[in-house]
Amino acid sequence: MSNIVRIGLIGAGRIGRLHGDNLARSVPGAKLEAVADVVMTDEIREWAKGHGVTKISAEPADVINDKEIDAVFICSSTASHAELIIQAAKAKKHIFCEKPIHTEAQYIKQALEAVEAAGVKLQVGFVRRFDHNHKKVRDTVMSGRLGRPHIIKVTSRDPEMQPYSYISTSGGIFMDMTIHDFDMARYLSGSEVTEVTAYGSIMIDPQIAQCDDVDTAIVMLKFENGALGVIENSRAARYGYDQRTEVHCDKGCVQVGNDLIDTSMISTADGVFCEKPTWFFLERYNNAFIAEAVAFVDAIINDKTPPVVGNDGLMPVYIAIAADRSLKEGRAVKLSEVMYTER
Amino acid sequence: MSNIVRIGLIGAGRIGRLHGDNLARSVPGAKLEAVADVVMTDEIREWAKGHGVTKISAEPADVINDKEIDAVFICSSTASHAELIIQAAKAKKHIFCEKPIHTEAQYIKQALEAVEAAGVKLQVGFVRRFDHNHKKVRDTVMSGRLGRPHIIKVTSRDPEMQPYSYISTSGGIFMDMTIHDFDMARYLSGSEVTEVTAYGSIMIDPQIAQCDDVDTAIVMLKFENGALGVIENSRAARYGYDQRTEVHCDKGCVQVGNDLIDTSMISTADGVFCEKPTWFFLERYNNAFIAEAVAFVDAIINDKTPPVVGNDGLMPVYIAIAADRSLKEGRAVKLSEVMYTER
Amino acid sequence: MSNIVRIGLIGAGRIGRLHGDNLARSVPGAKLEAVADVVMTDEIREWAKGHGVTKISAEPADVINDKEIDAVFICSSTASHAELIIQAAKAKKHIFCEKPIHTEAQYIKQALEAVEAAGVKLQVGFVRRFDHNHKKVRDTVMSGRLGRPHIIKVTSRDPEMQPYSYISTSGGIFMDMTIHDFDMARYLSGSEVTEVTAYGSIMIDPQIAQCDDVDTAIVMLKFENGALGVIENSRAARYGYDQRTEVHCDKGCVQVGNDLIDTSMISTADGVFCEKPTWFFLERYNNAFIAEAVAFVDAIINDKTPPVVGNDGLMPVYIAIAADRSLKEGRAVKLSEVMYTER
Amino acid sequence: MSNIVRIGLIGAGRIGRLHGDNLARSVPGAKLEAVADVVMTDEIREWAKGHGVTKISAEPADVINDKEIDAVFICSSTASHAELIIQAAKAKKHIFCEKPIHTEAQYIKQALEAVEAAGVKLQVGFVRRFDHNHKKVRDTVMSGRLGRPHIIKVTSRDPEMQPYSYISTSGGIFMDMTIHDFDMARYLSGSEVTEVTAYGSIMIDPQIAQCDDVDTAIVMLKFENGALGVIENSRAARYGYDQRTEVHCDKGCVQVGNDLIDTSMISTADGVFCEKPTWFFLERYNNAFIAEAVAFVDAIINDKTPPVVGNDGLMPVYIAIAADRSLKEGRAVKLSEVMYTER
Repeated sequence: MSNIVRIGLIGAGRIGRLHGDNLARSVPGAKLEAVADVVMTDEIREWAKGHGVTKISAEPADVINDKEIDAVFICSSTASHAELIIQAAKAKKHIFCEKPIHTEAQYIKQALEAVEAAGVKLQVGFVRRFDHNHKKVRDTVMSGRLGRPHIIKVTSRDPEMQPYSYISTSGGIFMDMTIHDFDMARYLSGSEVTEVTAYGSIMIDPQIAQCDDVDTAIVMLKFENGALGVIENSRAARYGYDQRTEVHCDKGCVQVGNDLIDTSMISTADGVFCEKPTWFFLERYNNAFIAEAVAFVDAIINDKTPPVVGNDGLMPVYIAIAADRSLKEGRAVKLSEVMYTER
Repeated sequence: MSNIVRIGLIGAGRIGRLHGDNLARSVPGAKLEAVADVVMTDEIREWAKGHGVTKISAEPADVINDKEIDAVFICSSTASHAELIIQAAKAKKHIFCEKPIHTEAQYIKQALEAVEAAGVKLQVGFVRRFDHNHKKVRDTVMSGRLGRPHIIKVTSRDPEMQPYSYISTSGGIFMDMTIHDFDMARYLSGSEVTEVTAYGSIMIDPQIAQCDDVDTAIVMLKFENGALGVIENSRAARYGYDQRTEVHCDKGCVQVGNDLIDTSMISTADGVFCEKPTWFFLERYNNAFIAEAVAFVDAIINDKTPPVVGNDGLMPVYIAIAADRSLKEGRAVKLSEVMYTER
Repeated sequence: MSNIVRIGLIGAGRIGRLHGDNLARSVPGAKLEAVADVVMTDEIREWAKGHGVTKISAEPADVINDKEIDAVFICSSTASHAELIIQAAKAKKHIFCEKPIHTEAQYIKQALEAVEAAGVKLQVGFVRRFDHNHKKVRDTVMSGRLGRPHIIKVTSRDPEMQPYSYISTSGGIFMDMTIHDFDMARYLSGSEVTEVTAYGSIMIDPQIAQCDDVDTAIVMLKFENGALGVIENSRAARYGYDQRTEVHCDKGCVQVGNDLIDTSMISTADGVFCEKPTWFFLERYNNAFIAEAVAFVDAIINDKTPPVVGNDGLMPVYIAIAADRSLKEGRAVKLSEVMYTER
Repeated sequence: MSNIVRIGLIGAGRIGRLHGDNLARSVPGAKLEAVADVVMTDEIREWAKGHGVTKISAEPADVINDKEIDAVFICSSTASHAELIIQAAKAKKHIFCEKPIHTEAQYIKQALEAVEAAGVKLQVGFVRRFDHNHKKVRDTVMSGRLGRPHIIKVTSRDPEMQPYSYISTSGGIFMDMTIHDFDMARYLSGSEVTEVTAYGSIMIDPQIAQCDDVDTAIVMLKFENGALGVIENSRAARYGYDQRTEVHCDKGCVQVGNDLIDTSMISTADGVFCEKPTWFFLERYNNAFIAEAVAFVDAIINDKTPPVVGNDGLMPVYIAIAADRSLKEGRAVKLSEVMYTER
């Protein structure tokens, strides 16, 4: 592999352009070579040209079959991810794919098999693993200095409701939102989830019932290593994006809070006023998006295993399916149950 | 009622003497008049005399039947609480009783009926309600400034394992430890718990299996008002007594952490070092113990309803029973199920 | 010395009764035996009786000459301190004296000579040395783990203006307020101050000019060991009593902040709201007042040197005199200059 | 003015390349068009080419006289700043100049006169004004919500000693390090400094005496509006770059601390461990460097006054000269004294 990875971007919506900007400006060794979007607009065209990209197409296949492309970033709609992975793998491109690969496990498995058969690298976009805070929790746990993990806690709240159009097709809160936290639970514990029990409630917006979804949820987890976990979600925290993780271990506890807008304290007779967390994922995980792209390019140039592999894309989907079943059936659901179902 | 409440202490172990010291020194309007303990020792006798108490007896009945006593503090072993409440109520004494009243609901109900029949006041010793931190959460929620509560979170970890002798007879983690958190959940949410699912694990000490107990637990709660709750427990946090509560609401979130030994920050090339939480409940809830006694004496002098009434002693026991059943049977347990059983 | 120190309180105003309450309730080995106040009121009489004290007098000499008294607490007006110390020393009583001993060094020296001649113990009431926070800074510096101190910083702000009646006779901001910080500078640095430069300004209340005083001040200090110091004062911080100290050393920095009313964080769309510092010295230094009395009684019972000795009462007065001269003359003033003057 | 500002960089050392990278990647409307350095190296050449720059020269005049250049970034050695400003102004280029413009006020005045005569824009590189934290303090003070400022405090410590080669020619601590804090004092107070008293000490490294400098300093300031200020410096804080500011006002206090490496808290039996501040100015002020370049380009495109003008480059130099004189002569020095001297 040369020292430059030529990358084709498939899907140039909000998240696609975020990756494109990072690849063009902030990722050493990356060259944004081509952009494809099935709904090509003047806006996308202008954006791509601004980065010096001349290969612009409405056909993902143009990118996938381009001999001068080494790797693709799949940032198109979720439904298209698995099929694009299969095509890109056949064309021997390395693949970065946004999460989730698919909401149904069987399609994920097909995609992973294609990747394995082709011998290309696949990294799944669980960006929070690259956040300096969560990474510190993981590194502390993995260092062993606190002994074995006992309790894994994830607090994850969005600042505001996503639009109904999104929620109604997203696969539900566990698939669209908690899936990041399921990944986090695996990442922080270093262990696999074996059982899930989910509670959900509609507290924010009664209309969400029409999407057959909830807006407030708590999920308990059991892990293979005996540890317990709990994830807590709200679709609207008002004060910003609340992303805290904590692992309690044999010898103590490691926890991280939010990055704040600034470190100010204003003390008056009315109390002490501090700043809120940074607003949403674009602010909080800005550097993490760069770090995940850097890691992907580094894995290609130096022939390493990417830090988030195919199985990491599959397991959280199983957990989400189990959580959804638990909520609907009012009982604990073992992972083995939903894994069997999908085979 | 005069302005002085003459109090007889029944049970002068660690917690009894703590209350006795507070009544003698720090509770305006209280007079520590008599002390009874079924195992009267020289140490207790000396302690009582140090407070100027001359009525010292190995017979609780001596205190209960003393015409010069207005109220009793029942701090004896748990098994004796309900019976002593009944006797004290019959003798028309106001009653402060340490938690839990009993581990079986039927005996609690009998005690509460005796209290009601006698028309005396009963306050149950859920001391954490008087902690400045948790009280701030409650007051903020009740003020309505954040709207309705959505999620109630309680983190509650002991600094070190209690002795096996205690754990083997305590009724299990939910009855001896989480019961405080069940009370806190009701207190902070202002709503009743309707359903419980509990996960437990043995992570700290394998020998605890012989007590038929766990040392690490997570419990999910559903509340009448639609809110969800989660309690997380460890029997040994090593770094001290970790007591945090949080309520997430319509318009934001209120949370409290631990009181620390001091506010120091020591910054060196190796990092920044801060102090731990105060060690255990005697340190953390020192002022809360005084405040609950003050509130009890105030309720008597000014003929108010005590801030923690009989039903507040009953409901957490139901929740503990439900949690225990949930853990043992691996399913969600509705409160109505265990309440029915006990009738 | 027996295990009980019989104490006579001289001066039963706000601070005197604070000490009296502590001696009666919270100081092991102390017995509040007598109370004298030159303006004896029914209120004081009732208060003393409430603690079981029967020796109540309008004559300090009654306390000082009482054979059944081992030690006195001098809490009368500042102007009387030095003379009462001399009388008490002659009567062979151990002495706790509120700060300052006097605003003029020559009278302090006379008092210290009388104490030395009598061989009794004298402790001066620099209560902040017993605060858990400042003590942690001192202990960290003295442990040597951070190497030598370079910079000593004291932030000290009152929550509100004292009355004009107080300010106009107090000896000025450096004598009534900063004197505590001068003591803190010596305590935290473990070194003597050699030079002072003071800036002052009237920012809060123009009428303070009529007291020939300032309400806002900054004082720079040089220490014998080469370290530099800075103290910053405001007579009205509005948000409470702001008492922070910091020492920067060879290998890092130790700093402490304020104790807060509670640990709450309330997060909303408008920001994050926390609690203020505890209101004033009675709240912030409540435990420190107990600790200093405990230390005094312990020094007597176990024949130790008290933790704040006579010279500790003298040096801050020199520094205050030097600061006052610096402010008035607009120049740096060496301590040797004012020490010489006073001889 | 068109929407693109073509910029020539003069001086491509560490700070020059930092600005160059930002202009090339992160500043909308900026185009890095040319690079000059009197010591042109292959490394600089490669770096410039990497940004697509083809105009590369060892002659600043090539950049200054290039008709296709709209503005210059002067990042060369301090001694050359004033002369380059004069040349660039004559060539009608807008000018961004790193601080300080010069260590002698007369040369700064000449440069400012040339800028004024040419009618070009000049922005001086006081980058800390663009830090989110300090800016919050300034904005809070300027909003008037806290009333008038009383006390301005700046804590500013470097993580490690600069090399002797730097210190021996830098003009001393007040000119090389505190100058940023003098700017900060003016920025936060919204007022001019009228008098300075400086204390300095050699605590870190005795060899610094050979540079005729100190490594530890405290400076008191008086402001036109009556407020007082204090700046505290250390050349080696070991734990990182400590940059805190605070303004105490009529109605309360606003303060900001450091950005930390992460938000982790690790609690064990040994204490609670948190992260250090970000290491040095490159990390702490990374976003501030971008923001100042954005502001400069915006001032040009939209014909605004730059946020840091020529006089802002002059006044801190006067204050530094006064501080130096104060330290050497052991007395307070009025700004009017050094301003007069320099005319």
